[in-house]
Amino acid sequence: MKDNFSLEELVEAQRLISPHIHRTPVLSSKALNSISGATLFFKCENFQKTGSFKARGATHAILRLSEDEKRRGVATHSSGNHGQALAWAAQKLGIACHVVMPENAPEVKIAAVQNYGAEVHLCAPNLAAREAGLKAVQDKFGAVFIPPYNHPHIIAGQSTAATELLEDYPDLDLIISPVGGGGLLAGTALSNYYFSKRCQVIAGEPEGANDAFQSFYSGNLVKEHQTKTIADGLLTTLGEINFPIIQELVLEIITVSETEIVEALKLIYQRLKIVVEPSSAVALAAILQQAERYENRRIGIILSGGNVDLAKLPF
Amino acid sequence: MKDNFSLEELVEAQRLISPHIHRTPVLSSKALNSISGATLFFKCENFQKTGSFKARGATHAILRLSEDEKRRGVATHSSGNHGQALAWAAQKLGIACHVVMPENAPEVKIAAVQNYGAEVHLCAPNLAAREAGLKAVQDKFGAVFIPPYNHPHIIAGQSTAATELLEDYPDLDLIISPVGGGGLLAGTALSNYYFSKRCQVIAGEPEGANDAFQSFYSGNLVKEHQTKTIADGLLTTLGEINFPIIQELVLEIITVSETEIVEALKLIYQRLKIVVEPSSAVALAAILQQAERYENRRIGIILSGGNVDLAKLPF
Repeated sequence: MKDNFSLEELVEAQRLISPHIHRTPVLSSKALNSISGATLFFKCENFQKTGSFKARGATHAILRLSEDEKRRGVATHSSGNHGQALAWAAQKLGIACHVVMPENAPEVKIAAVQNYGAEVHLCAPNLAAREAGLKAVQDKFGAVFIPPYNHPHIIAGQSTAATELLEDYPDLDLIISPVGGGGLLAGTALSNYYFSKRCQVIAGEPEGANDAFQSFYSGNLVKEHQTKTIADGLLTTLGEINFPIIQELVLEIITVSETEIVEALKLIYQRLKIVVEPSSAVALAAILQQAERYENRRIGIILSGGNVDLAKLPF
Repeated sequence: MKDNFSLEELVEAQRLISPHIHRTPVLSSKALNSISGATLFFKCENFQKTGSFKARGATHAILRLSEDEKRRGVATHSSGNHGQALAWAAQKLGIACHVVMPENAPEVKIAAVQNYGAEVHLCAPNLAAREAGLKAVQDKFGAVFIPPYNHPHIIAGQSTAATELLEDYPDLDLIISPVGGGGLLAGTALSNYYFSKRCQVIAGEPEGANDAFQSFYSGNLVKEHQTKTIADGLLTTLGEINFPIIQELVLEIITVSETEIVEALKLIYQRLKIVVEPSSAVALAAILQQAERYENRRIGIILSGGNVDLAKLPF
């Protein structure tokens, strides 16, 4: 499945989006190295445009549209980071954007999407209504649907975070990202396949949303599951395009408990002095859970984003 | 009073401490520029060693000791950032350190100082006991007292944050720092006096600890005051050495309410995605309070540190 993504395509994705996105910094902390026993390099996508790595995929997907598609504009349904990222990228690239959002979405998230110039279409808070809302927008405006993760251009866009990380630190032993729909993880695995010599990719996932873990070890894609986790960016199930790439190129998926996520989140706030969303802490939580296995390894950790409701921080 | 600090002394301070401390990054945010109407450059001392600018002054003060003094070691009384900074700098430079701390200080702060290799001496939680404890340590070990702000070497050390900022952004119109004891503010003002052409220095102070404001506008140094503010790094009164430098070189001190501090703190977490202590938000709060005066100005904001008790965040 990786063969659907060429080296050239990943290089081109990076070339296309670089003028528009931040090359995010990589932070490290002696204290966290000491606590983990490993040497950790945190790729800070919380500092990315719109506060998450999603700006990469959204920008890439729009830049790959035909001129006719660009004229028609883009649409998605999202109450989270993808909606903001698509709205931002569309505004930046001068095309129309429609975001279908559940009517019970927090005001602040609706306002964020509107502030990026997108038109928000509210719908009932269920999947059927979201899909119907999206179809109506597509029919009415001719807008092109840009899904949050299950799309080759999104995956190639998300690959650029790991590509930058490997450019900065070519001698990593391991890269770990969180996994939700699998856009970031599949992209990271592809980047690593093409741009590293011996580094391996693993993933962290909440026990309370462990569909990727189940799919990965059973070989059968889980499409529905009950979720319960503070890592609200990781509630979705793996995409059909993402799954085989992950199966082929990812070494391991480690699940972590809610307590482990909160502990890792605290450490990131206290030691790195940065604001990240709970989903971002899942990867560090996985490393700390298995610390004895990773002693003295050089590990890149992708911090996916920093869009958190401060009133809901678990400390 | 500025004449007690030469250009050469500030240059030398920077030369001496640079190998030991972080050159901290300067962050900016389109959203915060848009909210304030100014162009803001945040000097991130929350990323400094030990989590605050205090590492600069402590390192400089130790490096300026005679060989005999270094053999005797250093001592201070502190329950906050200065104690940690002095302990860290002493460990790094291979000399003994004693920190007198109130017995009701949080465990985590005592542990932090001990983790940096310093010997902690607990005392009753009042100023008399702290001073007696310090004297006992000086008498017993011959240790040299390094005060937190009222000392020329501390002031020269703290000046280096603004020096770096002015090297990175020579065309600032204004630099603002919070003011507590006045080490950071006096150092910033001195740096600006020597290293900028036309930039001016102002300060932000909590209304609930406004001794610097009172001293500055009355011309008489206030030595005792009642405090009530979330900005717990700014509770101390201005130092006697710091005061005349501030009188001579600082343009203005703006006081801000607790609500304004919390609002600014939230904006820093939400928009810059970084963890700072409430004291750090005071400077941004002052700019936002007076936003119409600072429209389109290029303003450096010194974020003093990031050592915050996460359980006590006001959101």
